[in-house]
Amino acid sequence: MGLPPTLIIGSGLIGTSIGLSLRRVGVLPALWDSHPDTLGVAVRRGAGAGPDANPEPVGLVIVAVPPAACAEVVLKALAEHPDAVVTDVASVKEPILAQVVAAAPDAVDRYLGSHPMAGREVSGPLAARADLFDDRAWVICPHERTSQRSATLLRELIQACRAVPVTLAAPSHDRAVALVSHVPQVLSSLLAAQLLDAAPDQVAIAGQGLRDMTRIAASDPRLWTDILAANATPVAEVLQDLSHGLQQMIAALRAGQSSTLSQALAAGNAGRERVPGKHGVATGTVSVLPVLVADRPGELSRLFTAIEAAGVNVEDARIEHVLGRPTGVVEVTVPAAEGQQLANLLQSSGWSVRG
Amino acid sequence: MGLPPTLIIGSGLIGTSIGLSLRRVGVLPALWDSHPDTLGVAVRRGAGAGPDANPEPVGLVIVAVPPAACAEVVLKALAEHPDAVVTDVASVKEPILAQVVAAAPDAVDRYLGSHPMAGREVSGPLAARADLFDDRAWVICPHERTSQRSATLLRELIQACRAVPVTLAAPSHDRAVALVSHVPQVLSSLLAAQLLDAAPDQVAIAGQGLRDMTRIAASDPRLWTDILAANATPVAEVLQDLSHGLQQMIAALRAGQSSTLSQALAAGNAGRERVPGKHGVATGTVSVLPVLVADRPGELSRLFTAIEAAGVNVEDARIEHVLGRPTGVVEVTVPAAEGQQLANLLQSSGWSVRG
Repeated sequence: MGLPPTLIIGSGLIGTSIGLSLRRVGVLPALWDSHPDTLGVAVRRGAGAGPDANPEPVGLVIVAVPPAACAEVVLKALAEHPDAVVTDVASVKEPILAQVVAAAPDAVDRYLGSHPMAGREVSGPLAARADLFDDRAWVICPHERTSQRSATLLRELIQACRAVPVTLAAPSHDRAVALVSHVPQVLSSLLAAQLLDAAPDQVAIAGQGLRDMTRIAASDPRLWTDILAANATPVAEVLQDLSHGLQQMIAALRAGQSSTLSQALAAGNAGRERVPGKHGVATGTVSVLPVLVADRPGELSRLFTAIEAAGVNVEDARIEHVLGRPTGVVEVTVPAAEGQQLANLLQSSGWSVRG
Repeated sequence: MGLPPTLIIGSGLIGTSIGLSLRRVGVLPALWDSHPDTLGVAVRRGAGAGPDANPEPVGLVIVAVPPAACAEVVLKALAEHPDAVVTDVASVKEPILAQVVAAAPDAVDRYLGSHPMAGREVSGPLAARADLFDDRAWVICPHERTSQRSATLLRELIQACRAVPVTLAAPSHDRAVALVSHVPQVLSSLLAAQLLDAAPDQVAIAGQGLRDMTRIAASDPRLWTDILAANATPVAEVLQDLSHGLQQMIAALRAGQSSTLSQALAAGNAGRERVPGKHGVATGTVSVLPVLVADRPGELSRLFTAIEAAGVNVEDARIEHVLGRPTGVVEVTVPAAEGQQLANLLQSSGWSVRG
């Protein structure tokens, strides 16, 4: 087994990171980019050889160019490398597949789109990292014409990059990223924007809930404008579903219909249980212990030393805002079965556990 | 100075916690509850004396009963204790103030509503804690008839409970809790409910953004139905504003108007900067370092020991989900000025910092 001679087209963040990642397992890909300077940086970083270095026929092409150019470059690669399997890494899959099916029906068995769920809020080959894909999901979007060879080769690429393959049909992928990534971004931004008209003291009483709900509102608007525009239809569909739910809530609040409110909240409970936690631990089976800590160096390590000495596996942790005092509250998430025992143990060691 | 003879009406979670909190500073309040069993538990927990124990005229009454009964109990307290200042701790303030103004215009100078921003997803005197209000905001809602004595006494109460006073007019308070607490809850629940129709593999590709955005969707539906119903009008108003923004986004996505998308995302950036971080650190001035850790006991304490030994103050931390592997990523938030130096230091000590 092992990857055939491989060509990466586009040496930005993702293309260069794939090259660096493949170098770890002894593969030297050929690199190409329409910008010679960008290509030069990627080659000097060791992500692969220049395009003229490898005389062998290419067996795998990875197209890592911006979404708007992607279908065109995929079609060109299918034509220029008639024996190669071609993939791309764009964050939206259905429109590209549709263009390939329409323009190259006889070659579509060699096209298999994919999407590594990794990225950074930076771009270019200088920001690339060999470990960018480690332990990340990398979605493969097979279609009815996908050849066995394409599927096998894609899995080998993903394993070589130490990522985890997840299979979704292209429309299902586009709906999924709308649901789990793009729509949460829109909601967070809209909620945060509501704060612009609030008085300082109104915002000052905010707790952890608002912090969580507005964290991703800090994302780069240019990057996200492109992401949302590229997946506009699925994002608009999910937002429209959500808008119906919002109108129902507004009507129920104005009419005093408590049953509608409680049904929506209960549906939220059920939906939340589907969100994967660390290692897929169901969210209903954890306890959250708020532990008071002094705000001075050494307190966090002292706390985690005490918790880990008790043999308890920390599922999550967060540090909460405390108004105007040199203290913090560390919310430690642990398996529910160990919560009470750990709380008792910490308290007997002098920690203040708020319960 | 010091608190006058104090009566707490309602010995549930909040009333009993106030009693326990006051006992820490040497104040023994009188307690009353319409349920003798509940009252008995609070007295046995040491939150105060029974109602017959104190023959002195009451100078401060704290009404800690469910919101629906609150105005009636406040009015009764104003009538029965003609020299006392009366406060309540309900989570909605404008409707109660309006009822007191209408029914007892001559006594309203002695009524000053308040709202401690503390609570737990449990109720009753057994769940009460002396430290429930420590370092928490406690909102005071003065009105045009509030006496100086009422304002002074409320501040003394809040200081005795080790909370932090924040002043907001009643309508401003109700709008604020809608904005920073009730509306985020509704959005989180509606977003989580959207996941109910998704396939497991669609949800499996979710990252930290979705986890943050759905965390509070796990809240108790019964508790939150009451909270939302009690503050229905302000919540509906903020949701309606948000709904307009949502419709604009949907229209912009369908029409391909990128400028509307980027404006909304930029407004989200600006709004997010208003959310208080730990000690009010502006969110723009921090760096987030994702550090790879093995999933075994001792790794977290080893990491925090390394960070704190470098003299760096951790602003926040969270542990990220890793698909199917015995590793985790700890996202450590530190002041931006120290981010790069800490990343270099951790990497030179053998930690993998993903950038």
